[in-house]
Amino acid sequence: MPHNQRVRILGIDPGSITTGFGVVDYDRGRLALIEQGSISTQRGAALSERLVKIHRSLREVIARTAPQAVAIETPFAGRNVSSLVQLAQARGVILLAVEEAKLDIFEYSPRSVKSAIVGFGGAEKDQVAKMVRMLLPGCAMLKMSADASDALAIAICHAHTAGTNARLKIRA
Amino acid sequence: MPHNQRVRILGIDPGSITTGFGVVDYDRGRLALIEQGSISTQRGAALSERLVKIHRSLREVIARTAPQAVAIETPFAGRNVSSLVQLAQARGVILLAVEEAKLDIFEYSPRSVKSAIVGFGGAEKDQVAKMVRMLLPGCAMLKMSADASDALAIAICHAHTAGTNARLKIRA
Repeated sequence: MPHNQRVRILGIDPGSITTGFGVVDYDRGRLALIEQGSISTQRGAALSERLVKIHRSLREVIARTAPQAVAIETPFAGRNVSSLVQLAQARGVILLAVEEAKLDIFEYSPRSVKSAIVGFGGAEKDQVAKMVRMLLPGCAMLKMSADASDALAIAICHAHTAGTNARLKIRA
Repeated sequence: MPHNQRVRILGIDPGSITTGFGVVDYDRGRLALIEQGSISTQRGAALSERLVKIHRSLREVIARTAPQAVAIETPFAGRNVSSLVQLAQARGVILLAVEEAKLDIFEYSPRSVKSAIVGFGGAEKDQVAKMVRMLLPGCAMLKMSADASDALAIAICHAHTAGTNARLKIRA
């Protein structure tokens, strides 16, 4: 990441039930929290209805916060096949919304996110959440879901490592 | 399927590279081919760009052919994890396009499609393709991709079995 200009990064933690998102500004080594939250879909709703909700809500987040880059985790292969398929279907409509907005998508593995935030790829989830709060001024007391915190971790990972670990475009 | 009214069914065979589709009319036990084809995406293009193409093209197929129901295969779990994730991401934007058109989605396993077409769940792909041509008048000599043929098989499966094996809405 060039250190001479501000960049706004949207991090996304995809899920078929809840998708976390977090928007940060990164300017000459300084991070600022712009927005964080999660897109929750109705449990028991049809999958297709939930995909519409995720796609529409994410388009709204992008329109409202106007990020310049989007960072997302690689699908985590350690899940069972059924939950991996659910996750990937949600990820499909997320990538669609990002591409429709003509934004660059950067992809990071869960290990590289942990490593960028905590300095250790095998870090626990709550260590990552704690570091996210420390790295973002003014959000120590903020109410934040685990999904939003994970999304912010991905955005911060991109801020710190872009140009080295990132893959600019995800290819099949 | 009630035998006293015509229903137009769109069958979809999802893929992250090529998505087959086939539209049939079913009226009092008679089938008619309306349209068949495949949505091909550029090999080597970014996944997100291909998802936009699949989503947009499928919306065009739906707008042009105005189906009343959509039938799709359940993701086939016998693949490797990487190809399953690619497939599921494509399936996500397909379900999105169908739901945006407010159409009912019916889901069938590969075995139940083969069983409905050939009468045997372990049938070979080319047996299914041959039966699709026999079941649809006038398409014996038609040029048809394997993906389009598979999509027509799913549509015909829905025509023959709807209300018995189908799940009206796919739930997570």
